[in-house]
Amino acid sequence: MKKLALGCAFALALACAAAAAEPFVLPAPHKSGGAALLDCLNARSSGRDFSGVPLSEQELSDLLWTAGGINRGDGRMTYPTAQDVRDITIYVFTASGAYRYDAGANALMMTVSGDLRAKTGMQPFAANASVDLVYVQDRSCWSKTKTPPEALVQLGYAHAGAAAQNASLFAASKGWSSVVRGSVDRAELGRLLGLNGLQHVLLAQSIGPRP
Amino acid sequence: MKKLALGCAFALALACAAAAAEPFVLPAPHKSGGAALLDCLNARSSGRDFSGVPLSEQELSDLLWTAGGINRGDGRMTYPTAQDVRDITIYVFTASGAYRYDAGANALMMTVSGDLRAKTGMQPFAANASVDLVYVQDRSCWSKTKTPPEALVQLGYAHAGAAAQNASLFAASKGWSSVVRGSVDRAELGRLLGLNGLQHVLLAQSIGPRP
Repeated sequence: MKKLALGCAFALALACAAAAAEPFVLPAPHKSGGAALLDCLNARSSGRDFSGVPLSEQELSDLLWTAGGINRGDGRMTYPTAQDVRDITIYVFTASGAYRYDAGANALMMTVSGDLRAKTGMQPFAANASVDLVYVQDRSCWSKTKTPPEALVQLGYAHAGAAAQNASLFAASKGWSSVVRGSVDRAELGRLLGLNGLQHVLLAQSIGPRP
Repeated sequence: MKKLALGCAFALALACAAAAAEPFVLPAPHKSGGAALLDCLNARSSGRDFSGVPLSEQELSDLLWTAGGINRGDGRMTYPTAQDVRDITIYVFTASGAYRYDAGANALMMTVSGDLRAKTGMQPFAANASVDLVYVQDRSCWSKTKTPPEALVQLGYAHAGAAAQNASLFAASKGWSSVVRGSVDRAELGRLLGLNGLQHVLLAQSIGPRP
């Protein structure tokens, strides 16, 4: 009950920040501790059973930092990108809205209000996950490289795959379900998020405690 | 010195197995323990400084299991693949040869003898890493799906990116350097490994202790 109440208070705080068009600053993420790496790898599996219980602010901060947070003073992250292009943006869908994760500010930026979790997937369970993460590639980040267009898309999938794996291992460390989904209506989701012609949805991922 | 001697004995054992065209069975990997997940994520970075010291059999077994080992009785792995296609094969290049990792047998299968580490990358440091991993997609694994060819290639990069991230986190847990490389002569490397028309090199990764 305490967790549910916390989740509701968090949702309200998020909604207030959104109404004021302000970033919602998350608590500082934990950057040490947690379960042992090999145990996380041994427990990792794709799970589709979700309770839908809201994550606490701290849990969401930790999850987003593991997936795509900054771990060094030069802005580099918990996963690598080719030529340091940093072309992946993570959007997080909760019961209250869709938010862009600003890793530098450790904050959520409201993008679309309302419960849009069902829109992140073809499968019904997406609506039941505590959060759905959507990995978007911004191809304008590649404007200074000579990498051919086809290769930069492929490498974007490698980047997103690495970030999602971080999140999967964090979920495993918590005993949660998580599943990466390649089956996404990319065009519809892009319209919903107001993406421009250089921003493309690559992968989605459902994460949260089991029932 | 003890480690170097162990490394030499291991190389000799590998060469003997290869001469007999037998699989070289690795010691059982550790599947629990290791550094804490959040510490590994905080320490992860791309490093290009390598001592070249050979890994022990146990270190190689642990590394390969983290990257792409089996963690359940049904053969599923430490990273996910869309539609459970299991389309990624990992090749490991050491000072003695290039080997296919057979995750089910926990064994190395000699593919090409000799030190071919330099062939896995465009950058000189690839020759100095203890091992170079090469992630190969076998598109014949997709023959039963309706996934369009372009999408299956993209998803293959997501799979390989996830596996390589596991290996990067293991390297971070050991204090080693590691770097994922998208810049690879895929055609030459494919010829060297004797890949068929449905097998394609996606990514390479250099891993090992620092100098």
